Amino acid sequence: METVSENACFGGVQGVYRHRSEVCACDMTFGLYLPPQAVEAPVPVLWYLSGLTCTHENAMTKAGAQAWAAQAGLALVFPDTSPRGDGVADDDAFDMGQGAGFYVDATRDPWAPHFKMWSYVADELPRIVTANFAIDEDRQAITGHSMGGHGALTLAMGIPGRFASVSALSPICNPMESDWGQKQLGGYLGADRDAWRAHDASVLMAETGFDGPILCDTGTADQFIDLLRPEALAQAVAARRQQAVLRLQPGYDHSYFFVASFIADHVAFHAEALGA
Amino acid sequence: METVSENACFGGVQGVYRHRSEVCACDMTFGLYLPPQAVEAPVPVLWYLSGLTCTHENAMTKAGAQAWAAQAGLALVFPDTSPRGDGVADDDAFDMGQGAGFYVDATRDPWAPHFKMWSYVADELPRIVTANFAIDEDRQAITGHSMGGHGALTLAMGIPGRFASVSALSPICNPMESDWGQKQLGGYLGADRDAWRAHDASVLMAETGFDGPILCDTGTADQFIDLLRPEALAQAVAARRQQAVLRLQPGYDHSYFFVASFIADHVAFHAEALGA
Repeated sequence: METVSENACFGGVQGVYRHRSEVCACDMTFGLYLPPQAVEAPVPVLWYLSGLTCTHENAMTKAGAQAWAAQAGLALVFPDTSPRGDGVADDDAFDMGQGAGFYVDATRDPWAPHFKMWSYVADELPRIVTANFAIDEDRQAITGHSMGGHGALTLAMGIPGRFASVSALSPICNPMESDWGQKQLGGYLGADRDAWRAHDASVLMAETGFDGPILCDTGTADQFIDLLRPEALAQAVAARRQQAVLRLQPGYDHSYFFVASFIADHVAFHAEALGA
Repeated sequence: METVSENACFGGVQGVYRHRSEVCACDMTFGLYLPPQAVEAPVPVLWYLSGLTCTHENAMTKAGAQAWAAQAGLALVFPDTSPRGDGVADDDAFDMGQGAGFYVDATRDPWAPHFKMWSYVADELPRIVTANFAIDEDRQAITGHSMGGHGALTLAMGIPGRFASVSALSPICNPMESDWGQKQLGGYLGADRDAWRAHDASVLMAETGFDGPILCDTGTADQFIDLLRPEALAQAVAARRQQAVLRLQPGYDHSYFFVASFIADHVAFHAEALGA
């Protein structure tokens, strides 16, 4: 593992690291924030999954989460959103290929050789960060924005017992019924819709739910809200009687100004669930 | 004046606007954050001047100042750092020409026709923002980062009575004695060093000082600290018995992770001086 950069930040360290990924078969870069408390003992960790077109860097520089993570004593991990590199398949569209891994393990060509973002975020990267940094692997939570909100919700429900809490900002809630989903799930997983079900938060909510608290925020002025389908998740949450807080925030759009405006709430929510 | 974008942000609005600048003789773009309190009545304003290579956008997306400005009820203005455009002179170096206006009115060619950043920030842009937004022109304060810290300090001392308070993060403190200064002041103002004196914060401090409080933060691990010369400003502040807090922050570098880590302190400092 190679250190790309380390910057002092709110009394802790914002690092960027690069490593060879076995599951993605390419070099991967991630951001990791360690709060000042990590000098004393391993700290709980909040995973932040980013949206379409993002790298490890967007949330790290624009969401402002470090201020609150430092206060609560939480580490933050910012994975990239896809495999990258010259030998990695890509697509001209912004919502497919590099920058758009959708947090699935692709089974179809040309994507299958590298696009294993589920395994990367669920297995490989957790092993790397807990082996190399002062992070308590028994206290994990997960959040994300847009495609990353989809990733957070599906990973939280798909790996029972791993995460104490899950939250999302402007998540893609029901990709099986949206143009943000059908195209990607079809491309990465093939035409059999049964294979998609493990990657649709509303379906997972209806079928299994989540053993812990959930917080979701979506802006009423989100320019992509018809693609996000928060109503599908809301319906499933209510039908299941799932512990959850689903908020529609007046006037907010899909941008990082929205994320920054509510990230303090999300960090505090996870800190409480993690006993931080 | 054209609205480029407006995003809901911490209950207020983060806008980006473009207008024809008379003094710079080109189109100029600026960011302006209006806190929720501006709906009720005009609010005090904190100017944020950015550093080399920055546009209006860097601090607006990476400093995290809106969270605190919303709490205190302060507007934030983020001017660009130079004139821009095809017809505007430039230089291959990152620290001269476009992105590096140094907050002076250039008198030498090829810079003189457009590079009037002192007049733009001191006169033209204040008229535009107070005419178009709910901003109280009698309650202004100023801050900045690096070259923008130089701009904040020299404008605050150069326009007595305008700003209630001034602060800076990693400011260029003594450009007359630094490679970050001699090149630019020589290029924009010519070889006569007397013309440079109004644009050196340490010289201004020795000669006139500032009628109000000053706050400066510099990181002990700042990779450019030898160019910033905080010791020159510290010496002048002490010799003058100027009201000031000059802090060296252990382990911090020159990046926006440093700015973000201390921007809450700076906003609170100005809010107190402005009675916000």
